[in-house]
Amino acid sequence: MKLVNKILRGDVGAASRLMKDIEDEAPDATDELKKLYPHTGKAYVVGVTGAPGVGKSTLIDTLIKVFCQGAMKVGVIAIDPSSPFTGGAILGDRIRMKYFSKDQSVFIRSIATRGWTGGLSKHTLSMIHVMDAMGKDIVLVETVGSGQVEIDITKIADTSIVALCPGGGDEIQTMKGGILEAADILVVNKADREGADDLKLKLEIMINRRIYSPDQWKPGVFLTQASNGAGVAELMEEIFRHKDFLITSGGLRANREKRARIGLHEAIRSYVENYISEKIANNTYLDNLISDIAERKTDPYSAVSEITDKLIGTTIK
Amino acid sequence: MKLVNKILRGDVGAASRLMKDIEDEAPDATDELKKLYPHTGKAYVVGVTGAPGVGKSTLIDTLIKVFCQGAMKVGVIAIDPSSPFTGGAILGDRIRMKYFSKDQSVFIRSIATRGWTGGLSKHTLSMIHVMDAMGKDIVLVETVGSGQVEIDITKIADTSIVALCPGGGDEIQTMKGGILEAADILVVNKADREGADDLKLKLEIMINRRIYSPDQWKPGVFLTQASNGAGVAELMEEIFRHKDFLITSGGLRANREKRARIGLHEAIRSYVENYISEKIANNTYLDNLISDIAERKTDPYSAVSEITDKLIGTTIK
Repeated sequence: MKLVNKILRGDVGAASRLMKDIEDEAPDATDELKKLYPHTGKAYVVGVTGAPGVGKSTLIDTLIKVFCQGAMKVGVIAIDPSSPFTGGAILGDRIRMKYFSKDQSVFIRSIATRGWTGGLSKHTLSMIHVMDAMGKDIVLVETVGSGQVEIDITKIADTSIVALCPGGGDEIQTMKGGILEAADILVVNKADREGADDLKLKLEIMINRRIYSPDQWKPGVFLTQASNGAGVAELMEEIFRHKDFLITSGGLRANREKRARIGLHEAIRSYVENYISEKIANNTYLDNLISDIAERKTDPYSAVSEITDKLIGTTIK
Repeated sequence: MKLVNKILRGDVGAASRLMKDIEDEAPDATDELKKLYPHTGKAYVVGVTGAPGVGKSTLIDTLIKVFCQGAMKVGVIAIDPSSPFTGGAILGDRIRMKYFSKDQSVFIRSIATRGWTGGLSKHTLSMIHVMDAMGKDIVLVETVGSGQVEIDITKIADTSIVALCPGGGDEIQTMKGGILEAADILVVNKADREGADDLKLKLEIMINRRIYSPDQWKPGVFLTQASNGAGVAELMEEIFRHKDFLITSGGLRANREKRARIGLHEAIRSYVENYISEKIANNTYLDNLISDIAERKTDPYSAVSEITDKLIGTTIK
């Protein structure tokens, strides 16, 4: 049976193989993705973001359990900040797989980000497409920080959860900036800790200072204790409340368009990137130019306009 | 007096302003960089890389002191993994500036990476150019992990230092991969801790397993205690030993070419990136295509070839 057919039947081995090919940028991967793509668009994408130490992984593990209790199929894409020195993501993956590996309805995949990045890998969207095609109802994407690295998860997810925990105190001042734009749901995890109610209150004050029109989603703040599961069922309910809101408001359709736009953008960028790398690697004209730059006869900023004039000859009408 | 002239005289305020403009991608910044570029190429670039907790910042603070004692002017570019939630980099910057702010020969600049990335920002090379033009003899660039995010510091630096510390134990297995290719000097910091000698020995065994030709640099392993300065003078000596080696072997000239190549590549990428974003933002043809992708009438992977054919009409001969 072909790889694509296997994936459409939910085969974990086949999906893993394609995901590896996507990460390795194997030429065949694109062909497989082309075939899979028409079967995607059904999964609901939930982003879970937060600084290290807030308990994101435990929160996701608990979310998986409540989704599974609701007979839903869950895919998880974990983008851990894994140092090449510690191999953190791989270890974490193994530990978590232990609990779920026998459960066919859950599929967890860590993307070993190259280097130390907690933002999205450029392959994240393709990974989501694979999980979607496998028939997952929910795809959870775990990232560190609401990074603007590569693509921000909040631009991809249908529901974006930002997790915090008490004990940071002052950071609430600095995080004011983007957090309310980024989050559909705010979670104060480790709710048994001192300061949890206070943090919740502060976040609610921040939210209430803003003006939301009736057709705008207003984020709520939820207390959870991922370690024992307290509050996580309520969190799941809120995710579905947000989903219903998106269906009614047309936001779900808009999110699809948004992902299509980002997907196309990424595909073009990746193509142009490879094209440029290739040109720069084997090009006498450029080699001479680079020599001139190294010798300070010209500068890279001036050289670029000359090159791009040659590189981009025609434009889209 | 013009900004460029001020920077060439080492003016910290003017340099800070240009660096801010570079980060904000202000249009004028490129013009200023064009004018500065002919005055660059003198600074020696040292990369300091390592996982969080190994004591990189303290090590750099101590290195600054020994460089200053040698009457050298030092610039530091710190690329901290700063969460938008904690604003870590900014705080760290303030603390460290306290010690050096009155000393005109030291200039420290944190790049607040957007999101959680410890790799290089795409603006790092331009930041180095500014410090170089200011007359800094040494530019230290601090990153977390030897990330392949954006550009890897080891591809930019003249001397790459990889810092470790005892206590990780098992990670030595996983780090085997890239570390020896990446490091010109290995530092075991926190040398007073148990296991420091053992870690040094293991690293030396790894090094001695490899075959180095006589014209190849063989990395050494150094024990330091950045907290009290022990071993840091020896580390500085090793940096200069490596510099002498590069001068003799022609490696310094090669590094300049390498940076010129990366700089040009980045400039082109940035240009093309902006060009594509603009095209995608305001383009009826693309809007229709995106609708088709969202509705699964076509897929982003197929659409890209159609677009790039139109986008890249001519090629460099």
